[in-house]
Amino acid sequence: MIVVMKPQSTEEMIQHMIHRVEELGLKAHVIVGTERTVIAAIGDKRNGEQEAIEACEDVEQVLPILAPYKIASLETRSEPTVVEVLDFAAGGPNIGMIAGPCSVESEEQIIGTAHQVKAAGATALRGGAFKPRTSPYSFQGMKEEGLKLLAAARDETGLAVVTEVMAPDQVDLVAQYADVLQIGARNMQNYNLLQAVGETRKAVLLKRGPAATMDEFLLAAEYILDQGNSQVMLCERGIRTFEAHTRFTLPLASVPYLHEKTHLPVIIDPSHGTGYANLVTPMAAAAVAAGCDGMIIEVHPDPAHAFSDGPQSLTPEVFAGLTAQCRKVAAAMGRQLH
Amino acid sequence: MIVVMKPQSTEEMIQHMIHRVEELGLKAHVIVGTERTVIAAIGDKRNGEQEAIEACEDVEQVLPILAPYKIASLETRSEPTVVEVLDFAAGGPNIGMIAGPCSVESEEQIIGTAHQVKAAGATALRGGAFKPRTSPYSFQGMKEEGLKLLAAARDETGLAVVTEVMAPDQVDLVAQYADVLQIGARNMQNYNLLQAVGETRKAVLLKRGPAATMDEFLLAAEYILDQGNSQVMLCERGIRTFEAHTRFTLPLASVPYLHEKTHLPVIIDPSHGTGYANLVTPMAAAAVAAGCDGMIIEVHPDPAHAFSDGPQSLTPEVFAGLTAQCRKVAAAMGRQLH
Amino acid sequence: MIVVMKPQSTEEMIQHMIHRVEELGLKAHVIVGTERTVIAAIGDKRNGEQEAIEACEDVEQVLPILAPYKIASLETRSEPTVVEVLDFAAGGPNIGMIAGPCSVESEEQIIGTAHQVKAAGATALRGGAFKPRTSPYSFQGMKEEGLKLLAAARDETGLAVVTEVMAPDQVDLVAQYADVLQIGARNMQNYNLLQAVGETRKAVLLKRGPAATMDEFLLAAEYILDQGNSQVMLCERGIRTFEAHTRFTLPLASVPYLHEKTHLPVIIDPSHGTGYANLVTPMAAAAVAAGCDGMIIEVHPDPAHAFSDGPQSLTPEVFAGLTAQCRKVAAAMGRQLH
Amino acid sequence: MIVVMKPQSTEEMIQHMIHRVEELGLKAHVIVGTERTVIAAIGDKRNGEQEAIEACEDVEQVLPILAPYKIASLETRSEPTVVEVLDFAAGGPNIGMIAGPCSVESEEQIIGTAHQVKAAGATALRGGAFKPRTSPYSFQGMKEEGLKLLAAARDETGLAVVTEVMAPDQVDLVAQYADVLQIGARNMQNYNLLQAVGETRKAVLLKRGPAATMDEFLLAAEYILDQGNSQVMLCERGIRTFEAHTRFTLPLASVPYLHEKTHLPVIIDPSHGTGYANLVTPMAAAAVAAGCDGMIIEVHPDPAHAFSDGPQSLTPEVFAGLTAQCRKVAAAMGRQLH
Repeated sequence: MIVVMKPQSTEEMIQHMIHRVEELGLKAHVIVGTERTVIAAIGDKRNGEQEAIEACEDVEQVLPILAPYKIASLETRSEPTVVEVLDFAAGGPNIGMIAGPCSVESEEQIIGTAHQVKAAGATALRGGAFKPRTSPYSFQGMKEEGLKLLAAARDETGLAVVTEVMAPDQVDLVAQYADVLQIGARNMQNYNLLQAVGETRKAVLLKRGPAATMDEFLLAAEYILDQGNSQVMLCERGIRTFEAHTRFTLPLASVPYLHEKTHLPVIIDPSHGTGYANLVTPMAAAAVAAGCDGMIIEVHPDPAHAFSDGPQSLTPEVFAGLTAQCRKVAAAMGRQLH
Repeated sequence: MIVVMKPQSTEEMIQHMIHRVEELGLKAHVIVGTERTVIAAIGDKRNGEQEAIEACEDVEQVLPILAPYKIASLETRSEPTVVEVLDFAAGGPNIGMIAGPCSVESEEQIIGTAHQVKAAGATALRGGAFKPRTSPYSFQGMKEEGLKLLAAARDETGLAVVTEVMAPDQVDLVAQYADVLQIGARNMQNYNLLQAVGETRKAVLLKRGPAATMDEFLLAAEYILDQGNSQVMLCERGIRTFEAHTRFTLPLASVPYLHEKTHLPVIIDPSHGTGYANLVTPMAAAAVAAGCDGMIIEVHPDPAHAFSDGPQSLTPEVFAGLTAQCRKVAAAMGRQLH
Repeated sequence: MIVVMKPQSTEEMIQHMIHRVEELGLKAHVIVGTERTVIAAIGDKRNGEQEAIEACEDVEQVLPILAPYKIASLETRSEPTVVEVLDFAAGGPNIGMIAGPCSVESEEQIIGTAHQVKAAGATALRGGAFKPRTSPYSFQGMKEEGLKLLAAARDETGLAVVTEVMAPDQVDLVAQYADVLQIGARNMQNYNLLQAVGETRKAVLLKRGPAATMDEFLLAAEYILDQGNSQVMLCERGIRTFEAHTRFTLPLASVPYLHEKTHLPVIIDPSHGTGYANLVTPMAAAAVAAGCDGMIIEVHPDPAHAFSDGPQSLTPEVFAGLTAQCRKVAAAMGRQLH
Repeated sequence: MIVVMKPQSTEEMIQHMIHRVEELGLKAHVIVGTERTVIAAIGDKRNGEQEAIEACEDVEQVLPILAPYKIASLETRSEPTVVEVLDFAAGGPNIGMIAGPCSVESEEQIIGTAHQVKAAGATALRGGAFKPRTSPYSFQGMKEEGLKLLAAARDETGLAVVTEVMAPDQVDLVAQYADVLQIGARNMQNYNLLQAVGETRKAVLLKRGPAATMDEFLLAAEYILDQGNSQVMLCERGIRTFEAHTRFTLPLASVPYLHEKTHLPVIIDPSHGTGYANLVTPMAAAAVAAGCDGMIIEVHPDPAHAFSDGPQSLTPEVFAGLTAQCRKVAAAMGRQLH
């Protein structure tokens, strides 16, 4: 951590700051520049020391040197983490394909869709039973009944089940039926929930919050990893920007950036990341070319009658075209859809 | 809702869309323009009809006419809601002042601060016992022990206690000690938590998420209101933008905008809204001039040794200057600090 | 255009608004909804009518139906525009590759780089002679001397020359030497400059401003097209968002979105779009998969000694790897690097 | 400047970097930390050294210590700059009020408005003769005829004339008629234009670009100052964010932030900063409370028939209320409307 003192800092202020740095368990190293004095505070602490120093009156700014996360870091583990559940795998050479409807709506809908996405090449089935909805007046999900239908779909097709859990006290229930616990974007910083899924040994799909920085995203993963659960997938699903022609802005540079910082697999969600069905296939192909380790795609047998997310859902036929396209791009990149 | 058909829509497509609109319980009214056909879908439904129409292939876009929230709307209740707890009041003519440390750290710290902020003019005490922290390695709060200290501070000073609740299963515990339940910005769309505080009859301070639109913010309030709890305060605490010289961008236009849409009181948090102590007083004065109904300010007896949020915390002396300044501006606006 | 009246509008207000709509040369069509009255204003005018209506006191909001641009629209011309200069082509089946240094620095640098990027597969050479720099203290370019070196590089290699023009009174000079006139992102809404390049018959590479909406971007192109110059390429180079781990956020969904709205070719700039050399190759591959019609890449023989943009410049060797990768992805997509 | 080396940097890499730092005219000071080696590069250069270092392969990141601007800095001049023209003054104790229509439309309109805004307390008149418009099909201004009408309004009322100049070759013409040259937000980084107005000795109102950082804004001012023109006012007019309920987001924290960094006066534009007439008065009052040195407000005798910006224009009556409100807040802050 680099502590930049205000201009005209006196020797006394500098001594005071050295003392404060040492009090925090760091070593102080003073550099006198032409216009500012700077103190390098040396040590590998990550417990709020930066904030403590910034709060000192004589400090102009504090520049962190070390990443705030540890277990998620490539410096801690240089081998890519591969998350495998049933036939689904993401990470390393594998690109895992998760597909299915936004919400579980009926037995016919979920089991029919499961067969169709499997035929097109998916190895995991998505489907919401507990649905976080912006409006209290929208359909809130089939709850446990939906979980049962998902499990039935897995029994029929062998697809791994990916479904969202919204509250700590739901974790046990959802974990009974699901293969992968999804943390939605709205809950990326719901720390009680992160700790609760960290205590299970189920794989976790952690969605990036639409205003989260990369450090915040990796620290959210760190909450899960820190509980001993190493099976975490990071899912980029778009950020909120001024752009209004797409629902969110999907920054694919997250893929190569995260691969330089972390060993965790990176999944792309082009359905939420664009919000419109017609943009999903090109962005899925682009995600593969950018090096992603998996994708999660909304597919519905009849988008115009979907209970939720119809505008961004693909029909099974269009989804089959998407996987065909992605398979070719993956081959061009020396990888393969799992 | 206005349904814009794609150019070159055939009569058959238009008939199909009229049918779909009617199927959703709305009345269809067709307008043939020079380049597009438009269907006005008439009715007051708010249950996902927009999404259902957007998912139809022949539709170019759907433009909503009605706000998605109802109970929070000024059209439902034209009188301002006044939230009153002990001596604190916000809304109508009242500007309520909430102040205190980010975290409860010790008996001495919280009771000392309580006396000081009360002397300066605050009528409510903030202080975190359960702390949502970006990093799992940061101080996570004193938990129930912190709640007890807050209650002790209220007993000594008469200040209303405002403190955060992070999970549905904590609501009962926190409600035993607190006068106002705070929902943090990270939990603005934690719907299980919103419903849980909605089931209590405690006042709620709902913070805007840093990427939330106004409609999403009001719909989050609607989740609480819809459970029968009418004592909701909306707290603007800054949004995430490209600006890096402040931690968040504090958009004070939220105050007059919200006053035109809702009867709920609007509280401003210039501490989180800027992130730097030296910007807090001017923005607090500006918030009063913009018409806010209250403020929440971080005050710590020794910011450089605060366990959290030191950089944006004021000393009690500086806070006394802030309230003096705000009192003058309030008088100029024909209002008063409560 | 849909005019939404305020709730409780009287018959008189509605009559007044009908009159105003007709005064603007549009046909008014009234729809009485359950909570609002709406007036559809029919006609194909695009001269500020929306603003005029919005300014009326009794109006709650105005929703536009038609795109504000015309010549750029796919509805005006459904065939893709192909921009061809020398061996460079972008649009339709062609993916054009533009590469070269940020700034022209010397004869050796620009001619050497030209040979190297050509060998790797580029058909156009970029290089700045007039440089818009954030700081007045930074290198401002070699000016006309730089233009002459660019022309010399074209003479030696046959590459088309792409270079920036910064002011209307520079257009004639730059057009003497350049094959493609580049409008930088900072000048996207410099309308005098847009009109000046519109008056030439040189191809134009128009960069998106980092805060421009798609409509603003297409209207900037419309300024050029409206002067009779049809050879316009749209260049997405990243937008400004809260993300700080990349210099800009590169939204590749712009590619399929623009292809649905306009016939103009879409070029991607992954160098400025990320700001870091190590992210350029994956994002270039992703851009091809997303369907772009060309790319512009910063390449410098010695990035660590570049006069500008070193951090995002590739060495010629890395650039050769990029083109190899993009060629494979293009083949997978059924297209080819030109 | 702090140079952070990549982890596992060898002694040779560090020596190489020391050499590069010295080659750039800076002194190198090495600090070996627990996980990274850091090199402090000491000196007051501001000519692109940061970029040059960042481009080196072994560097993880570079952290600047010094602000990139100099003449604009409070460290160069600690007294506030006061811009005075005729009866208008901004800076120090003065809050200057600029008001008038978006566009000059006719003699009657501009002279009538001038009388009205003067009566309400304005000391400068705004009005566009050359209009930068998003669409080529919108009204583009009365050009020189408009300038003449502005000069006539000044002759009648004594108000200083503030009007926009859009291109370097217009500067002489506009300077003949105007008292203050306005640089619009779209042209904030039009460096040829900045230099051209820097060469005059007319006061300049420089608007912040909607995606400009504070450093970029101050560097744009530096371009003008560097030409010897010291009469620069900084105008905050809102930034582009995801918020759609206002046209731009007006970040009033810019006022106290800029006052800590620069001696130049800070003007607020609540008309463009919100986009809606009903939000202008509260935000103007808030701007005064935040400590601004002036305001620029759009006022039109008949907003519903304005040629441009009608939705955000106030009637003269509403403007009179605004100045009355601001006057009271200014008094509460110990300042006065000039």
